[in-house]
Parts: sequence; C-alpha cells; structure tokens
Amino acid sequence: MTRKFIGRLSAVDTDFDGQLKQLLAWEAVANKQVEEIVAEILQQVRNRGDAAVIEYTNRFDRRNLTGAEDFCLTPQALTEALARIGVEEREALEVSARRVREYHEHQKQGSWRYTEADGTVLGQQITPMERVGIYVPGGKASYPSSVLMNAIPAKVAGVDSVAMVVPAPEGEISDLVLAAAAIAEVDQMFTIGGAQAVAALAYGTETIASVDKIVGPGNIFVASAKRAVFGHVAIDMIAGPSEILVICDGATDPDWIAMDLLSQAEHDEQAQAILLCPDAEFLDAVESSLERQLAELPRATIAAKSLMDRGALILVDSLEQAIKISNRIAPEHLEVSVADPESLLPQIRHAGAIFLGRYTAEALGDYCAGPNHVLPTSGTARFSSPLGVYDFQKRSSIIYCSPQGADQLGRVAATLACGEGLEAHARSATFRIKK
Amino acid sequence: MTRKFIGRLSAVDTDFDGQLKQLLAWEAVANKQVEEIVAEILQQVRNRGDAAVIEYTNRFDRRNLTGAEDFCLTPQALTEALARIGVEEREALEVSARRVREYHEHQKQGSWRYTEADGTVLGQQITPMERVGIYVPGGKASYPSSVLMNAIPAKVAGVDSVAMVVPAPEGEISDLVLAAAAIAEVDQMFTIGGAQAVAALAYGTETIASVDKIVGPGNIFVASAKRAVFGHVAIDMIAGPSEILVICDGATDPDWIAMDLLSQAEHDEQAQAILLCPDAEFLDAVESSLERQLAELPRATIAAKSLMDRGALILVDSLEQAIKISNRIAPEHLEVSVADPESLLPQIRHAGAIFLGRYTAEALGDYCAGPNHVLPTSGTARFSSPLGVYDFQKRSSIIYCSPQGADQLGRVAATLACGEGLEAHARSATFRIKK
Repeated sequence: MTRKFIGRLSAVDTDFDGQLKQLLAWEAVANKQVEEIVAEILQQVRNRGDAAVIEYTNRFDRRNLTGAEDFCLTPQALTEALARIGVEEREALEVSARRVREYHEHQKQGSWRYTEADGTVLGQQITPMERVGIYVPGGKASYPSSVLMNAIPAKVAGVDSVAMVVPAPEGEISDLVLAAAAIAEVDQMFTIGGAQAVAALAYGTETIASVDKIVGPGNIFVASAKRAVFGHVAIDMIAGPSEILVICDGATDPDWIAMDLLSQAEHDEQAQAILLCPDAEFLDAVESSLERQLAELPRATIAAKSLMDRGALILVDSLEQAIKISNRIAPEHLEVSVADPESLLPQIRHAGAIFLGRYTAEALGDYCAGPNHVLPTSGTARFSSPLGVYDFQKRSSIIYCSPQGADQLGRVAATLACGEGLEAHARSATFRIKK
Repeated sequence: MTRKFIGRLSAVDTDFDGQLKQLLAWEAVANKQVEEIVAEILQQVRNRGDAAVIEYTNRFDRRNLTGAEDFCLTPQALTEALARIGVEEREALEVSARRVREYHEHQKQGSWRYTEADGTVLGQQITPMERVGIYVPGGKASYPSSVLMNAIPAKVAGVDSVAMVVPAPEGEISDLVLAAAAIAEVDQMFTIGGAQAVAALAYGTETIASVDKIVGPGNIFVASAKRAVFGHVAIDMIAGPSEILVICDGATDPDWIAMDLLSQAEHDEQAQAILLCPDAEFLDAVESSLERQLAELPRATIAAKSLMDRGALILVDSLEQAIKISNRIAPEHLEVSVADPESLLPQIRHAGAIFLGRYTAEALGDYCAGPNHVLPTSGTARFSSPLGVYDFQKRSSIIYCSPQGADQLGRVAATLACGEGLEAHARSATFRIKK
C-alpha cells in the first residue's frame, strides 16, 4: 500500500487480504479504569438518586446546580428555542422531521394471528415500550439531526414517554438541539450527561423516571455505562467510528466523490472513507480532488488525519469484485455511484444504508432523506440494523388452544416433557387431554 | 405475607407494593472472579484457537480430545441418533418442529420500498445473517426442545449456516438432543461448551468459523462470555430464572392451575410461580392441591424450594387489578385462565407469551404449540421479545435520489449541515443541487 495523504491499494495484489484486514482493524478499547469509575457513578446514582446526579454534573460539566429543578427543562424552554432559531433552519428541521416520520411509518409492525382447523389461535401481539431515554451528546458534537433521528422512531412506535438527556457544559446548550427536541415532541428534557445520566435513566431518581431502553451515542464513559446497564434496560448498539464505502464505476464527477469521502473524514480522526473503483485514472482524479478540496475545509486537520490514518483508494478488477469486498467490510454507509445501481443491489448482503446512484450523496441521508442516520458501524451491519420503529416495539406470543387443540398438543407435549424428565410439565399437559 | 410452603398475599393490603417488590427481587449477580476467568478463556481461544478449546474442554468436561476432529460431530452421527430414539419421541419432535416452523414462517419480514412524486426511491432491504451459533446446555439441563426453538427461527430466516455447540461431559451426550439437531437441520455440531465454546463461535478457530450471532442459554460462565463478546457479535438477551404468572377467575379446575404452577417450579429452585385470583376459596383449593400434587413429583425437592422461596398466591379485588399487577411484573409466561380471556387481552401490555383460556397450559407452548419458548425473563418483557425470525434478519436502508429529489434534499441538508458546522457535508449535498 502506498500512502501519500490517503492509502492506495489494489485488490489484485497478492497480499490484498492482509492489507484490507489491517485497514479495517479497529476495536473498542475496553478501559478498565473507565469501567471502575463508571461502576462507582452507577452505584452512587442508584443509591442516592438526584443528589448524586447533581454532584457529578457540577463536577464534570462545571455547573452550579443546587436542586433537581435546575437540570429540568420545561416544554416552554424548548418552544422558545424553536422561536429563536433562524427561519431557514427551522424549516429545514421541519422538512427533515416530516420526511423521517413518513419513512419510519413504513416500519410499524402490526399484531397478527391465525386460526387452525381445530380452533386453536396463534399469533403475536405488538406493543410499544412505555418509556425510553435518548442520550444526546453536548458541546461540539451536539447534533440536532441526531435528536430527530433518535426521538422520531420512538414516537412513531407509540412510546408513551420519551425522555432526553443532553449535557450542558458550563450551562451552554445549543438552541438547534432544543428546537429539534421541540419538533420531535420529546416529552421530558434533562440537561445532564455522562455515566450519571445513563444511570439516572436506567435506575430512575426522585425526579427522573426509569426507562425501558436507552439509545444514542456518547463518549467512552457513556458507552461503558450503557454496556454496564445492558440487561437491566435495553440499549442500542455501542457505536464505533463512522465510515463510508463508495463503489464508483469511474463516471461520476470526481469532485463529487472526493467531497463524499471528505464528508465522512471530517467527522473525526478515526472516521474511515474508502473508495473502490475499477478505473485507475479515476482514482488519480479523486486523489487530486481530495488534496485540492481538503485545503478549503474548516475541519481540514481532522479530515486529513482521518484520510491519512484510515482512508483508502482501492483499485478493483470489476464492480462485482467491489461488491464482494463491500460484503466483507459490511460498511455503515455504502454509496453505489454507478450507471445501473439497481442491478448490483441484490448482491449487496451487508450494509447499514445503501445510497444508490450518482445523485444520492450520503449527506442527504444523514439529514433529511427519511431513513435513519443511526447505523451499524465497524462491520456490525453483518448482524445489526439501522435504528428504527422496531427498536421501540416488542412482541408477545399469543396462544389460545381449543379443547380439541389442547388434546392433540397435550399428547405431543407430554411425550417430550417425559423425555426431558419434567414430570409436572407432562402432567399439566395431560390434564388437558380428553379422557 | 404468610408463607407455609408458598407465600400468600393480598393485593388490597396497604404494604402490598413493597411485598410485591420483595417477591420479584432478582438480579443477575455479576461475579468478578467468573469475569476474570472468562476473560482469560476468551483471550486464550482468540490467540491459540483449537488448541485452547481442546485444553479447556478436556479440563472442564473431563474428556480426552487429542485433535479438533474429536469435537466435531458428522451429519451422519446426528441421523444415527435420530434412528436410535423411540418412534413416539421421534414423531413428537417432528410434530413440534413442523408447528414451530409453521408459526415462525409468519414472522418473516419482507423488503419494502416506495417511490416519491419526484422519482426518489426509499425503502429497506431485509437479508438473513450469514452464520449463527446456538449454545445448547449439556448434562442434566440438556433439552431437545431448546434445540428446535433456537435453530428453527434461524433456518426460517434463511441463515446460510447454523452451528451448534453442546458440551458432552465425560463424552456423554443425549440422543434426543442430537436427534433434534438432525430434525432442525443444524449445519455443524461441536461437542464443546462453556466460555471456550462462546469464544470459538465469536472469534473463530482453525476448525470453527466465526458467527455473527450467538443465541441460547447457559450457566454463569456462558452468560459472562456472551456479555463479554457482545458488540463483536450479536447475542440474545441474558436469561434469568424462568417464571409464570397465572391469572385465574377461580373457575378452572384447581388441580390444573396447581400443576401449571408446579411445572414452572420444577425447573429450578430460583424459578418463580405466581397466581393472581379474586377468589380466596379458590386460592385455598390451589394451595391444598399444590401440597398434594407436589408430593408425587420426582423433582419435588426443587419445586418445593422454588414455591417456598419465590412462589405466591395473591388475592386480588378484580381481574382488572390482576392485569395491572401483571403489567407491573411483565412476566415471561402469562396464563389467562378465565371465561373470556380475549376481553382482557387489549389491556395486557408486557408479557413474553400469553396463554389464553383454561385449556392453554404453558407446557403446550414450551414444547409444540408453535411460538418460541425462548422468552424474556425477569421483567425484560418490558423491552424484549420472544426469540424469532427477526433475530436472524437485519435491515439495510435504501435511498435512491432522482436528480430532482437530490436538488430538493440537497438544499435542506446543506442548511442543516452548516448549522452543525460540517462544511464537507454541506458541499457534498450542494454539488447535487441544480445550478
């Protein structure tokens, strides 16, 4: 692999597999020290509730809270923020919210049942969770779009109450974030963050009712806290750095493709942007464009380090080979910037979101196309899905046996229960067999 | 609460809430020592593959494996076991498998898409996972029904390859378990267990290909190992002790209800069986029946301890109050043994599986009704679902913007990206706006 300011690889090299493995290598560092600090915070909040939340918030966020009311924001505060922001931004948030809502309505699952010949009814009842908590990062990484993407699916699912936590370091909080919460109809808002906020949501305090599920990204303390409360409440996946894989046939404007890669690279230094293309000259053009456009970006330093450490332009022998490599990577975002993307779609096995065609920039999906921007990272698209309405619904099996059905099933169940040495199971089934 | 051999409570007592809380109290004990042992096992298997799996298996399961081939079972070994078991048991397993398959076919989710007025296409593509691992406990708790319940949903989902691990202490393994694996069409079978089996499935070895998801119950070492590999692969929920909540109007045969409670209690000493009924005399009748029928059970000692420590007969003032209490408990199994169970169903908010009517014993659902018997325990039905086909499928968002759609969405995305300070995102979107 050559590497000037971004790696260059060829998929036909004999050692490509090893190079790719090295390129993708990333693992959440389990930090023992962080885990111990988090365990202590969880225990303190569990034992002492609001008092502990206030202490930690004052210490970590440099605030002067004197009571729980100081970390509660009223619905009025949210609508006031909505009134303060610019008209263009408000309209953009509203368009985005409407489109996200519309898309997620398609994900709603309905209860179902069927009746067998003997009258036995089987089915599944779908119900929303009662209460969920959304973690929104504060400070520099405070994104109003994430508020919409996390809250709206819960609302569409029919969750009774959506509580949001967002840290306000030194009391500062973004009007855009509050406005997005107003638009998404978040029910309660608490200006707290870190492991103490996760603990408050998981265990409840005098002021904050405990939730059934906690979603949303956060720093290593938040991620460790979520892992620790997993099982007591549900959590979403623990996210790694964001990544994009672009497959291009070489006929899209190289400036467009370069900027798509840069839009990923500007997120953070660990973000990963990879391009697969069968046209070596196109790769050269993208490389030049990257160098030129990078220089104009306010976040050039971050993007440059991301490209240098984790980016790659990879020459492939065909689009089919590109798809095979993509399935191996299981990317969070996959752009298929080719003439006939639909023909490749059936071969795509693992990806968080698939952006088809030359016009579908990832950024459109990040903000307002409709699908969720909370997506499985670091290859977890092999077994995980975008955040969705299904994350806030759960299912109960329904079984209603007719006397005839119970007679038939009772005989089978009794045989199997005896085979497992569970006599009470067998007798309970046998009671329902006709004498 | 009075307690002779099972607790008696009344929901109208002033301190009922506290008593109920105490009755339900159960928490997975996080055991530091176990976690450290498990971390070492995971590391060893990750570094040394088969060699480490063989060493741990020889040590913990008292076996004499000399090579990886010694822990691999051929498809032929499974079909031979199927031929060895009794005809009645084989038929019962086959009826069960057929019904489980039929029910789970209803859970299959299909891809969907819709086209907007400007030609933009949005949707979701559903694909099966490639490879999953099923953990089946060995020895005394080795249940063929669990093989069917774990493997069949994966097969219905279209998973390419289902690998099963089951420990064989001293080389012993149940023919019924092997036969069930043959019927469920398990693709590979390894006679290993414990944290070393979880590690082999999660990280892969020379012989065992790594999987995308690990499901199935196990002891504290297995549960700790699953929690540790969570994120690297997907896992199902970590199960607590099994429980049943029976709501009865007092008109079902008290012997039936007593045996239903005993069928839960015989599982293990931590299992929980609770009855809610508005008729005090019926509770007396069930108590007498429990005492009488308990004495006849082979697993009487286990069931007696379960009833004594964790069981309860609770007097309620109405069926409506019973449902409210049930929603608070969010039981794994809920029997609604009343005249008109359908009228209560809409009020049931949280339960793993709901058994309606006097004829629907939980045991029928455990073995052969069709719905899965892997269900959320310890109140996690508030946010979890029965194991299902959806556990082995995942989703990819589809976005295909028309030039017109990209123009409209590009403007919105650019506004929002600027608001978040992400200039490359804004430029990437702006490239797609018509000039």
